[in-house]
Amino acid sequence: MNSHNVAMLGTGLIGDFYTMTLHGQRNRDRVGVVYSRSEERGEAFSRRWGIPEHTTSFEEAINHDDVDTVVVGLPNFLHEEVITAAADAGKAVLCTKPLARTGEEAKRILDKVESAGVFAGYLEDLCYTPKALKAVQTIESGRIGEVTWVRSRETHPGPHSAWFWDSTKAGGGAIVDLGCHCIEIIRSFVGKGNRPVEVMAWADTLVHPIEAEDNAVVLIKFESGALGQFEVSWTFRGGMDLRDEVAGTEGTIWLNHFLRTGFEIYSSGGGGGYVAEKLESTEGWLFPVGDEISELGYVDMFTDMFDAMDEGREPRETFYDGYLVNAVMDAAYKSAASRRWEPVEVEWRGGTTPRIEKKAGLHDGHSIVKQETLPDGRVKLMLSHKETGEVFDLVTD
Amino acid sequence: MNSHNVAMLGTGLIGDFYTMTLHGQRNRDRVGVVYSRSEERGEAFSRRWGIPEHTTSFEEAINHDDVDTVVVGLPNFLHEEVITAAADAGKAVLCTKPLARTGEEAKRILDKVESAGVFAGYLEDLCYTPKALKAVQTIESGRIGEVTWVRSRETHPGPHSAWFWDSTKAGGGAIVDLGCHCIEIIRSFVGKGNRPVEVMAWADTLVHPIEAEDNAVVLIKFESGALGQFEVSWTFRGGMDLRDEVAGTEGTIWLNHFLRTGFEIYSSGGGGGYVAEKLESTEGWLFPVGDEISELGYVDMFTDMFDAMDEGREPRETFYDGYLVNAVMDAAYKSAASRRWEPVEVEWRGGTTPRIEKKAGLHDGHSIVKQETLPDGRVKLMLSHKETGEVFDLVTD
Amino acid sequence: MNSHNVAMLGTGLIGDFYTMTLHGQRNRDRVGVVYSRSEERGEAFSRRWGIPEHTTSFEEAINHDDVDTVVVGLPNFLHEEVITAAADAGKAVLCTKPLARTGEEAKRILDKVESAGVFAGYLEDLCYTPKALKAVQTIESGRIGEVTWVRSRETHPGPHSAWFWDSTKAGGGAIVDLGCHCIEIIRSFVGKGNRPVEVMAWADTLVHPIEAEDNAVVLIKFESGALGQFEVSWTFRGGMDLRDEVAGTEGTIWLNHFLRTGFEIYSSGGGGGYVAEKLESTEGWLFPVGDEISELGYVDMFTDMFDAMDEGREPRETFYDGYLVNAVMDAAYKSAASRRWEPVEVEWRGGTTPRIEKKAGLHDGHSIVKQETLPDGRVKLMLSHKETGEVFDLVTD
Amino acid sequence: MNSHNVAMLGTGLIGDFYTMTLHGQRNRDRVGVVYSRSEERGEAFSRRWGIPEHTTSFEEAINHDDVDTVVVGLPNFLHEEVITAAADAGKAVLCTKPLARTGEEAKRILDKVESAGVFAGYLEDLCYTPKALKAVQTIESGRIGEVTWVRSRETHPGPHSAWFWDSTKAGGGAIVDLGCHCIEIIRSFVGKGNRPVEVMAWADTLVHPIEAEDNAVVLIKFESGALGQFEVSWTFRGGMDLRDEVAGTEGTIWLNHFLRTGFEIYSSGGGGGYVAEKLESTEGWLFPVGDEISELGYVDMFTDMFDAMDEGREPRETFYDGYLVNAVMDAAYKSAASRRWEPVEVEWRGGTTPRIEKKAGLHDGHSIVKQETLPDGRVKLMLSHKETGEVFDLVTD
Repeated sequence: MNSHNVAMLGTGLIGDFYTMTLHGQRNRDRVGVVYSRSEERGEAFSRRWGIPEHTTSFEEAINHDDVDTVVVGLPNFLHEEVITAAADAGKAVLCTKPLARTGEEAKRILDKVESAGVFAGYLEDLCYTPKALKAVQTIESGRIGEVTWVRSRETHPGPHSAWFWDSTKAGGGAIVDLGCHCIEIIRSFVGKGNRPVEVMAWADTLVHPIEAEDNAVVLIKFESGALGQFEVSWTFRGGMDLRDEVAGTEGTIWLNHFLRTGFEIYSSGGGGGYVAEKLESTEGWLFPVGDEISELGYVDMFTDMFDAMDEGREPRETFYDGYLVNAVMDAAYKSAASRRWEPVEVEWRGGTTPRIEKKAGLHDGHSIVKQETLPDGRVKLMLSHKETGEVFDLVTD
Repeated sequence: MNSHNVAMLGTGLIGDFYTMTLHGQRNRDRVGVVYSRSEERGEAFSRRWGIPEHTTSFEEAINHDDVDTVVVGLPNFLHEEVITAAADAGKAVLCTKPLARTGEEAKRILDKVESAGVFAGYLEDLCYTPKALKAVQTIESGRIGEVTWVRSRETHPGPHSAWFWDSTKAGGGAIVDLGCHCIEIIRSFVGKGNRPVEVMAWADTLVHPIEAEDNAVVLIKFESGALGQFEVSWTFRGGMDLRDEVAGTEGTIWLNHFLRTGFEIYSSGGGGGYVAEKLESTEGWLFPVGDEISELGYVDMFTDMFDAMDEGREPRETFYDGYLVNAVMDAAYKSAASRRWEPVEVEWRGGTTPRIEKKAGLHDGHSIVKQETLPDGRVKLMLSHKETGEVFDLVTD
Repeated sequence: MNSHNVAMLGTGLIGDFYTMTLHGQRNRDRVGVVYSRSEERGEAFSRRWGIPEHTTSFEEAINHDDVDTVVVGLPNFLHEEVITAAADAGKAVLCTKPLARTGEEAKRILDKVESAGVFAGYLEDLCYTPKALKAVQTIESGRIGEVTWVRSRETHPGPHSAWFWDSTKAGGGAIVDLGCHCIEIIRSFVGKGNRPVEVMAWADTLVHPIEAEDNAVVLIKFESGALGQFEVSWTFRGGMDLRDEVAGTEGTIWLNHFLRTGFEIYSSGGGGGYVAEKLESTEGWLFPVGDEISELGYVDMFTDMFDAMDEGREPRETFYDGYLVNAVMDAAYKSAASRRWEPVEVEWRGGTTPRIEKKAGLHDGHSIVKQETLPDGRVKLMLSHKETGEVFDLVTD
Repeated sequence: MNSHNVAMLGTGLIGDFYTMTLHGQRNRDRVGVVYSRSEERGEAFSRRWGIPEHTTSFEEAINHDDVDTVVVGLPNFLHEEVITAAADAGKAVLCTKPLARTGEEAKRILDKVESAGVFAGYLEDLCYTPKALKAVQTIESGRIGEVTWVRSRETHPGPHSAWFWDSTKAGGGAIVDLGCHCIEIIRSFVGKGNRPVEVMAWADTLVHPIEAEDNAVVLIKFESGALGQFEVSWTFRGGMDLRDEVAGTEGTIWLNHFLRTGFEIYSSGGGGGYVAEKLESTEGWLFPVGDEISELGYVDMFTDMFDAMDEGREPRETFYDGYLVNAVMDAAYKSAASRRWEPVEVEWRGGTTPRIEKKAGLHDGHSIVKQETLPDGRVKLMLSHKETGEVFDLVTD
C-alpha cells in the first residue's frame, strides 16, 4: 500500500482545500513540507495543518528528500517556473487550474514534464465532483443517448486575492478564473475525444473597476455538432452558483453542485462558524453543502491522482487537458475581440468524432418528424415530404 | 362594467388555451364565434367550448355584428391576411406570437393597425406569467439593482402541428417558435426602453429530419451593456423547460415556470387524465403545474388586454413589441449565417439607456475592487492602483 | 350571466385578500358595502378597494338592499352572531375559516343556515389552491392508487392580530388558526366520505408568553385505515411553510405551496414593496410566489362559491365541512389533555369507506411480500409462508 | 499511522456498502476475512472485493490472528451471538443498526462489551451523513437557537431480504428497520443529553401481507420540551425518501439526503448500470445522489470509528446509543398497542436538560407576544395583559 509525501507550494485558500483533503478521512498521504513566499504565512499554514516543515524557498521544498510529489497551488504566473523545477527534480507534479495564462505557456509546461518523463496531473477538481463523475458514467452507459448540448455555469461575487483581479498575473478575468472549470466540465460530458473546433465569446467588464472581464458567455462548437456553453461571472449575488446541464437525444442531466443540494438553513443571524465558500451573509436563508471538499471534487481528484501514480497510468485530468483548456480560452479572448467565431488552435491528440446521428424513421418514404398518440388512440405522424420537404400531418388508425 | 365578444380565429392548442382562459373563473368576456379552415374542427371546437357560432370564413367571423374583438390563433403565415381584414373592419385585434415570420412582415402588420387606428395587442403570454409580472415589479422596485444579464430558456420535444416544423409557413424553427417568447421576456427584464443593439446566434439542426433549426443559442447585447441570452430546443427530453434568470448588481432572480414549481407526482402508471403540456410519459416522477392557464400567463394577459381596451391605454405587449421581436429574430438568423454579431435593424421608438454604472469607492485614490472582513475582524481591501492599474491587497485595522 | 353584490364583514388581512380576489382579473362580482367595528378602518378599506359604502353596523351591511351575499371575515368569536343575522335576512353567507370555536358552536351555525335555507359556503381557501385541486383530480383519476397517508403542514412565525393569540376569542391556538386548514386538506385527499374516526394530538406552548398552544402535531385515523397527520406552528422561522404530501399504494404527491415554488430572489436589501405573506426579512434569499391570491386558493374558491350559487348546487366546501373540522379539533384538544386517542364526535353524513385493500399475489399458495428482478435477470420472490407466516426468499428462473 | 484489519460478518447489501467504504479512496484499512453462512455467497463476496480469505465459521473469522476489528452486518437476531464471541476474543466490534431486537437484548449486548472492555461502535450511518454532521455543528454553534422540534423521515418500497419482513427475526417491521435511524438522527439534533421521556406511536399494516407494521408515525417527547417526530414506511412509491427537518427558536434546517440533492436525470429508458438504492425504475425522471457511500454517511462513520479506536476515545455513536434506540422502539410498540403515551424505560446516563426558555420581553409590565413594524414605520405590539392574560394590540410611534 503506497503512500505519498507532498510538498505543498502555496498557502492560499486552494492550499487549505488541498491539504484538508490530503489529511482528511483515513488517507494515507501527507503533506511533508509547505512553501510560501511569506515566512509568516508558511509558518501559520504548517501549524494549522500539522505539517513538519515550511520554507520560503520553493527549490528547497521541491528537492526535499522525503518528497515524491509536488502540488502547485500558486498564482497562475508562477506555475511555469515551479513546474520546471519540479520536472528537473524528477518529482511528480500536480498543478492547480488553470495550468497557465495562455496556450503557449501551457504548451511549454506540457513539453517540459513530458520531456522530463515525470508524472503530471491537472487538478481540475470540478471534473471530479461525485455528481460529475456519476454523470459521466450515466452518459457513457448510453442512458441519455448522444450529447447535443452542455452548459456549465460558475458565478460568484469575485475572488479573495488581489492577483486574481490582475490580468497580467492571472492571464485574464472571469474566463480564466472560472471558465477553465467550465471548459473541462463540458469536455467531460461531450466526450474528451470530441474536438473543440470553434469558439464564440462575449466578455465585458460591467461592474468592477478592473481591466479584466467580470462577465462572459462563451460558446464552443465540437466536432460532433454538439454545443458547449458556459456562463461565468464575478458579479453574481447570492453565493457561488455551480450548475451543469447536459442535453442528450434520449435524456437530460441537471447538476447543482452548490446552492441547491438539499441543505437549507434559515437563521435569524446569531451563532457562528464557517457556512460555505463565497457566502455573502450568515443571516436569512443559507445554502451550504454537506462536505465541501467532497462535493467540490477534491477527494476523488487526489484519489485518482495518487492511484494513477501507483498504477502507472494517466490520471483522468492531465497537463494535456490543461493545455487544451488554455487553447480554448485563447480562442475565447480572440473571439471577444474579433466579434466572430474563432478556431481553437491546438495540437490535437484525440481522434475524430462523427456527427450526431439523425435517426428519423420513414413512412411511405417520407421522414417521420414526430409521432404522437392522440387521445382517441390513433397515431398522428408529422412527415417531411420526401420530395418537397414540406411537413404535413397524417393520422393513422 | 364592459364585457367583450370575441371572434376566435383558429382551433389548435393555442385556441383551446385562449378560450379556456376567456371562459374561465368569473370572467365577463366570451367567445361568440369561432373560425376554422376546417368545418369539422370548427364544429368540434364550438361544441367543446359552448360557442354559439362557427364558420369557415374568417371574414364572416371578423365582421360578425356582435364581435368587437378578433383573436388570432392561426399559423404564422396567415397572420397578415386576417389582421388586415380585422383592421379594415375596425375591430380590436389580439394576435398570438410571433407576430409575423420576418421583421418586414411584422412592420407591415404594425403599420396597418396603426393607420386603421384599431386597438392591437400582442399575445405574448410568457411575459404575463404571475412570476414574470412579479419579477418585473421586483426589478423596478430596485431590489436587485441594475440588470446585467438575463437568461431565458424554452425547450421541449417539439411542437404538435406540422406547420411549425415547416420553415416556409413558420418563418423558421425553434428560434421563431420558442425564441420569440425569450426575446420578449428578456426585454421585460432588462427594460423595454433598453435598445437591443446586436445579436450573435448559433443554430443547428441536430436531431430532426427538417430544414429548420431544432436547437439554438442566441446572445443579445443591449444599449446598457446588459446581455440577454436564450436557449431554445425542440429536442429536449423530459417535458417543457421554461426558466428565466436575472442577474443584477444587487441581487438575483430565478424563475422556474414549469418543471419544478413545487408540484411533484410519482405514479406507477395507472389512472388517467391530462397531466401537463409536452409531457412525455404518465409514469414515474411527473411535474405538472397547478393551474396551467394561469401559470403560463394567459389569465393576466387577457385581463391586461381588455382592461387596456376599456381604459383607452396601450396593453403591456403591443404590436410594436411583436415587430421588435421579429427584428431581433431576423438579426439572429443573419448572425447564424454570417457567424458574427449582427446589428438589430429596427425603427426604434424607445429612448436611450445609460451604461450600467460602476460604483467603485476610493481608498487613498485607488479604486476599491473588493472589500472583505477577515475572521479577526480586520478589513481587507483589494485596490486597483490609481496609476498602474495593478491590483493589490491592503489590510486595515 | 349572473353577478353578485357582496357585503364584506371585516377589514383585516383576510378582508383584503377576499376583496382583492373579488375585484381581480375580469371578475363580474363586486363588494358593495364593507362593515368594520371601526369607522376609521372601514373608511380606509372602502377607499383602498373602491367600495361605494361602509358602515359600523353589520346589520346595516347585511340588510343592504343591493347585497345578495354576505362574506364573513371577522374574528372567530363573532361568526355566530353575524351568520345568524345573515341567515335571518335570507342572504347567502360565505364564512372564513374556522367556522367556529368549537364543534358545538359550529353545529348551531350549521343548523341555523340549514333551517333558514340560505346558501352557505365555507371559505377554506387552501383546499382550493390550484395545486390542491389538481392533486384531488390526480387522486380521483386513480393515478396514485389508494391513499394510505396524508400529511399537511402549516407553520409561520405567528399571526398579525391580537385576537388570534387569545384562546377565548379564537377558540384555541395554532391548531385552530392553522390546523383547521390542514384537517380539510387531509379530508380532501383521503376522500370526504372517509370518516375521521379518532384523533391523537400533541400540543405545547414552547416559545410565546401565551396560554394557547404555539406548536402541535396531530394524527387522524380514517375509516379506510389511512392516516392523516398535521404539523402546525407559530414559532417557525423563515416565512410561511405550506406543504402537503400524499402517499398512495401506486404513487406519491408532494405539494409545496409557498416557500419553494420556483421563484427565488436574492437581494442585498435595497428597493421596496411587498414580497410575500409572513416574510421575516427583505434581504438575502427570498421566496415569494407569483400570484399570491391565486396560489393561496382565493380565486378558485370564490369562483366555486358563486358558480355553486348560480347553479343551485353545493359548493366544494360547505358549513357541514366546517362543522366537521371543528369536531376534529375538539377531539385534538381532548387528546392533548387526556394523552390518548380520542374519538371524533360528529353527526356523520357521509357513507362508509372500506379498508385499504391488500392486493398480494400468491405463489404456490404463499403470499408474495415483494418481487424483485435480480441483475442476472432471475426473479426473487419474498414469500410469506401460508401456514407459519415466516417470510422466505425464493429465486425463480 | 494505524491501519486496521477487519473481519466482515455478513455479505448482504450492507456488507457491500461497508466494504466499498473501507476499500474506498486512499483508505488505510482493509477487510481481511469475510464470514457468510453460505459458502457460495462468501466466495462471491471475497472475489468481488478482493478479500484474501472467506469462511462459513464466524468464530474462525473473529479469532483470525490478523484481525483486530469485527464488523457485524448480519440480521438482527444474530447480533448477540457474534458480538459475544467478538467480546470474548477481545476484538473491537462495530455493529450495524439496530443493535438488537429489544431494549433487553440490547442491554445484554452493551453489558457484555463493557465488561469485556473492548471497543464497541454503533454503525448508525445516517447520523454521519455530511449534511447531518454539518447540521449538528450548525445547531451547536447557536445559529438556529434552541431546538423545538425535529422530524425525520425514512420511507421506501420495502427491504430486499426476507428476514427484514419477519418480525421474529427482525424484532419488528418498519419501525425497527427504518425508525432506528430516525430516533438517533432526532437525538443528534435535540442533543444527546436531552432525555427521551415519552413516546406515542401509530403503526399499521396497510399494504403488505405481513404481520409487522409497514407504516408508522411516532412522536417522542424530550425533557427540554422539544418534540421528535418520525415517519417510516415500506409502502412509499418513488424511491427512498430520506429527509430531516429541525425547527429552532432562531432558525430552521431542512435536509434532503436522497431524492432531491441537485442531481436530476431524465432518460427515455435505454442504457444501463446502477443508478440509486431502492429506485423503482430506470426510465423517466430519476434522482440519484453523487457518491452514495459518502452521502449515506458510511465514509465519515468508519473514519470516526477507527479514529476513536486509535485515539482511545468513544466514537460518536456507541452501543449505549444503540441500546437507547431499542428502548425508544420498545416504548413505541407498547404505545401502538396501548394507544397512549408510554414512558421510555432506560438506564439513563445523560444529565438533565432545562426546559426551552421563553424569552418574551416586557412593555409596561405586559409580556410582548409579537412585535411588527407597520408600513408607515410605526411599531405594533401584541401584548399579553399582566393581570388578565388577554392579548391586545398597541401601536407606538
